[in-house]
Amino acid sequence: MDYQGLIEEVYHEVQAENLKGKVADYIPEIANVDPNQFGIALVDLKGNVYGVGDHQVPFSIQSISKVHTLTMVFNVFNTKLWSRVNVEPSGDPFNSIAQLEYEKGIPRNPFINAGALVITDALCSKFENPIDQLSEFINELAGETCVKINPDVMNSEKNHGERNTALAYFLKSYKNFNNPIEEVLNVYFSQCAIEMSCVDLAKSFSFLANDGFSIFADRQILSESSARRINALMLTCGFYDEAGEFAYRVGLPGKSGVGGGVAAVMPHKFSIAVWSPELNEKGNSIKSIRALELLTDKLSFSLF
Amino acid sequence: MDYQGLIEEVYHEVQAENLKGKVADYIPEIANVDPNQFGIALVDLKGNVYGVGDHQVPFSIQSISKVHTLTMVFNVFNTKLWSRVNVEPSGDPFNSIAQLEYEKGIPRNPFINAGALVITDALCSKFENPIDQLSEFINELAGETCVKINPDVMNSEKNHGERNTALAYFLKSYKNFNNPIEEVLNVYFSQCAIEMSCVDLAKSFSFLANDGFSIFADRQILSESSARRINALMLTCGFYDEAGEFAYRVGLPGKSGVGGGVAAVMPHKFSIAVWSPELNEKGNSIKSIRALELLTDKLSFSLF
Amino acid sequence: MDYQGLIEEVYHEVQAENLKGKVADYIPEIANVDPNQFGIALVDLKGNVYGVGDHQVPFSIQSISKVHTLTMVFNVFNTKLWSRVNVEPSGDPFNSIAQLEYEKGIPRNPFINAGALVITDALCSKFENPIDQLSEFINELAGETCVKINPDVMNSEKNHGERNTALAYFLKSYKNFNNPIEEVLNVYFSQCAIEMSCVDLAKSFSFLANDGFSIFADRQILSESSARRINALMLTCGFYDEAGEFAYRVGLPGKSGVGGGVAAVMPHKFSIAVWSPELNEKGNSIKSIRALELLTDKLSFSLF
Amino acid sequence: MDYQGLIEEVYHEVQAENLKGKVADYIPEIANVDPNQFGIALVDLKGNVYGVGDHQVPFSIQSISKVHTLTMVFNVFNTKLWSRVNVEPSGDPFNSIAQLEYEKGIPRNPFINAGALVITDALCSKFENPIDQLSEFINELAGETCVKINPDVMNSEKNHGERNTALAYFLKSYKNFNNPIEEVLNVYFSQCAIEMSCVDLAKSFSFLANDGFSIFADRQILSESSARRINALMLTCGFYDEAGEFAYRVGLPGKSGVGGGVAAVMPHKFSIAVWSPELNEKGNSIKSIRALELLTDKLSFSLF
Repeated sequence: MDYQGLIEEVYHEVQAENLKGKVADYIPEIANVDPNQFGIALVDLKGNVYGVGDHQVPFSIQSISKVHTLTMVFNVFNTKLWSRVNVEPSGDPFNSIAQLEYEKGIPRNPFINAGALVITDALCSKFENPIDQLSEFINELAGETCVKINPDVMNSEKNHGERNTALAYFLKSYKNFNNPIEEVLNVYFSQCAIEMSCVDLAKSFSFLANDGFSIFADRQILSESSARRINALMLTCGFYDEAGEFAYRVGLPGKSGVGGGVAAVMPHKFSIAVWSPELNEKGNSIKSIRALELLTDKLSFSLF
Repeated sequence: MDYQGLIEEVYHEVQAENLKGKVADYIPEIANVDPNQFGIALVDLKGNVYGVGDHQVPFSIQSISKVHTLTMVFNVFNTKLWSRVNVEPSGDPFNSIAQLEYEKGIPRNPFINAGALVITDALCSKFENPIDQLSEFINELAGETCVKINPDVMNSEKNHGERNTALAYFLKSYKNFNNPIEEVLNVYFSQCAIEMSCVDLAKSFSFLANDGFSIFADRQILSESSARRINALMLTCGFYDEAGEFAYRVGLPGKSGVGGGVAAVMPHKFSIAVWSPELNEKGNSIKSIRALELLTDKLSFSLF
Repeated sequence: MDYQGLIEEVYHEVQAENLKGKVADYIPEIANVDPNQFGIALVDLKGNVYGVGDHQVPFSIQSISKVHTLTMVFNVFNTKLWSRVNVEPSGDPFNSIAQLEYEKGIPRNPFINAGALVITDALCSKFENPIDQLSEFINELAGETCVKINPDVMNSEKNHGERNTALAYFLKSYKNFNNPIEEVLNVYFSQCAIEMSCVDLAKSFSFLANDGFSIFADRQILSESSARRINALMLTCGFYDEAGEFAYRVGLPGKSGVGGGVAAVMPHKFSIAVWSPELNEKGNSIKSIRALELLTDKLSFSLF
Repeated sequence: MDYQGLIEEVYHEVQAENLKGKVADYIPEIANVDPNQFGIALVDLKGNVYGVGDHQVPFSIQSISKVHTLTMVFNVFNTKLWSRVNVEPSGDPFNSIAQLEYEKGIPRNPFINAGALVITDALCSKFENPIDQLSEFINELAGETCVKINPDVMNSEKNHGERNTALAYFLKSYKNFNNPIEEVLNVYFSQCAIEMSCVDLAKSFSFLANDGFSIFADRQILSESSARRINALMLTCGFYDEAGEFAYRVGLPGKSGVGGGVAAVMPHKFSIAVWSPELNEKGNSIKSIRALELLTDKLSFSLF
């Protein structure tokens, strides 16, 4: 398969479509990013890396980091985790608090904010230096030191963090939060502020395309079965209230972030990361999603 | 692959687990079915059929027929369909009316009742004898005359049909219903009353495992791309508010019915139908789901 | 008290304010009414009638008739009624179906549509010719033959009745509906199509200001205690999701209709009816509510 | 009117009914109160005080203090307040966060927790020593130094305050919260921890029965019109999701607290406070509500 030719073709077709969205504006560091940037990186199972456009420019991966923390935590708690967070699509916006009330403090899934806060809380229960250990873990997955936590983004997240703080207190009121709230939120805002390039991000997702084995870390990260389960979760819950649409149009397990990145995997074939800052109404990168749709069309395969 | 050995192994393991659920009790014809029945049929891409247990006993496929009607309608309307019904998981029970109100008469997906009523309404707009043509279509997919509409079930559905009637009128109030309500409901209740065996059901789903081509009908039923999309929809929306759980545990696109049946596909490998009447709390067959979970564990592959 | 002077003063002040709203447009008979009409009629406890503006012009009283049917039914069933319908403000639009689902088929109160349908169903259980008997009852309350059911309005209601039909089927699915749906809906649409003038409407509400005794019918219509309870219900639930606002601004028990009418009472003082077709965003007559607000300000009393 | 005889009669009848509820158990100071206590105090417009049972025992007034803070704040901000908080009944439990989300950070009314937090936030914006000034204000209304803030209750509220903290952060995320959260919550938890007897509480509500003039403070506390409006708000919103039921059964404006107290007024007649710790399912004192129902039945008047 000529992956390099493929992603270049996709890249140019998407550019020609001249899609317009809206950069996330809730924190200045993301609002001020050059909106025209666009990059794609694909990593096959042998570890070959293909890239086009701004694929080496670090960007704020935001919610994509929720896959990395879930991986760390899932490895420790395994299915016990599901007593604290569910595995169902939410049908509501990512930061909804209403559903959390109806479901008595058990978040719908680990990728909406409430669920991700539970995961980060679990991380803080088992790792002494959660931020450092998360960075090291992602560096290991990518096979090189690549993670940088942007302190300005981190501080901005904190200063706009009232809603996540509300979610944390709300979880605590349901006894579904064990560590000091400020400490967990610091980790949470830090993980949101991680910056990586498409290349490194695609490498860090490679084990999910490879039955849990990372060719870059050269070790089994998760059991085969657990890796499959994380993929299932990404497929049903990885794109907020656009998960069904993404499954329908693209058909790959993936996770998006408000910085405009999307990381996805085609199991037993490749992992891929796409980045472009302009978002659609649902908060997903308009060019990234279009690129992935074109890619699966051209490959004429997807999961399905 | 020794599919016969595999499904027998699964069959016996499930039987040994002695799982208990509750037969649906809203209509007598289903409430009075022998709850201990259990069958599995698997059809590979060459058309070989494997079966175990009560795989040749006809049962009420109920909501599984929503996949057949969607296929007929999708072939006619294609993506125009999505202006009338969405493609997102619902997170609510299958017969919820609240969500329909919040979303102004556009059902969440074609598999919850409101969405299925829209699909049946669309069917009535394009097919003159919708019930006969649906029966013929399924017979063609199965490669033999197998569909029987049980008139007692149909009448019982009608007599307990207030909620579906409410949904139909509600859709009409949003101008999302075009044909006379009673006519559409007759078709809807008839499709719910279809009886088939696991063998025939698995055969009728075979084209979805085979990029849209039915080996039994010997023709392309849907385009490859459309077949993939129906699989995506089944994965994200096929099991009511347990879709995430099914994707997580089983990882196959499928559709369940309140009669205890589940039909699913492993794309490019096989289609499968499992049936056992006792249901879990979410209304899905407890043995059928367990069987599919064991099957994908043993195969150690799924979509993901 | 110079009631005539008072309502004239109110009338002229409201006219001078030049308030603009929007006539209800869902049925032609109401949409085509002259929007500039405005009338006030007040009836004191001695039966003296005061009027200004279009107070003798019959108009479509619509939902105000829900007070009349509730009175008939409450007299028969008394507190047993509250097992079928609640007495709490709804906080939702008058025709919401979502709340009905959350609360398992028990409508929030007798003045939202779902609750009024239950009341009309109860009416049909106890009265052989419910429409005739309702008309006679209102005529008796008004002390003269005044009720006319407009057949065009009735037919239009029926033709736009999908949502109410959906509510009726939904209630039936919860076993909270006893008579044939079409029959009850006919009564319901007929009561909505009643036409009366402000004068007759104010007279028909007079017993609620007078501890249950109607000076026009010359008999005790309801017990004192029941009359107080209907007033309490009107205060907390009489204005859809604007009940709190009306209590806050006006402070009288009352009921509005989408035709632009409002009937209200000041217990132990007077009953009053105001009519003007243009509505605010919540569906209540903009001039009628303003008139009542000015009136209680000028009187410097209200309930409170 | 023999008010002393009346409340004694009511007291004995309620005692004879042997009603059983459940003491609030979320903080130990309230959970450990003697559940059999029961007192009534009534204050007429001349300032005469009538009492029976435990009417002189101080108890935790909890949410009843929301009327006192609203009075202080309403005097300062007047109708500008209603841009930050609505005046509609909520139909949801007092501490619901879902409704706040649907309505974009504008609480339904000043008596649910979210609304009361906005009021306390407004209090902190205008009063330098809000707690001291609130205590002084209530003392003035009662005509004597009676307010004690129980530090143990205050600390327990704080330690169980996650949900209120979540509400505060959630309000802040909608820019409907101006002061430091911890500071406002301290005031909020303090006001909940106020202890007063029925006698003093009834005296502190006297101005609401007297067109805004307090006979004990010997001054106009609120304009007549504002006093009426607070009464209207208490009637429609004073009893959480039981407001309609209370209006229906009792028909007086009032406010309840989870400590088992209820304060109410009969405009132009009297104010009254009743206390008994055991609560019904909706969180209102079972004996206090029954006492008020009997009282208005015996008087055969209410608002209506």
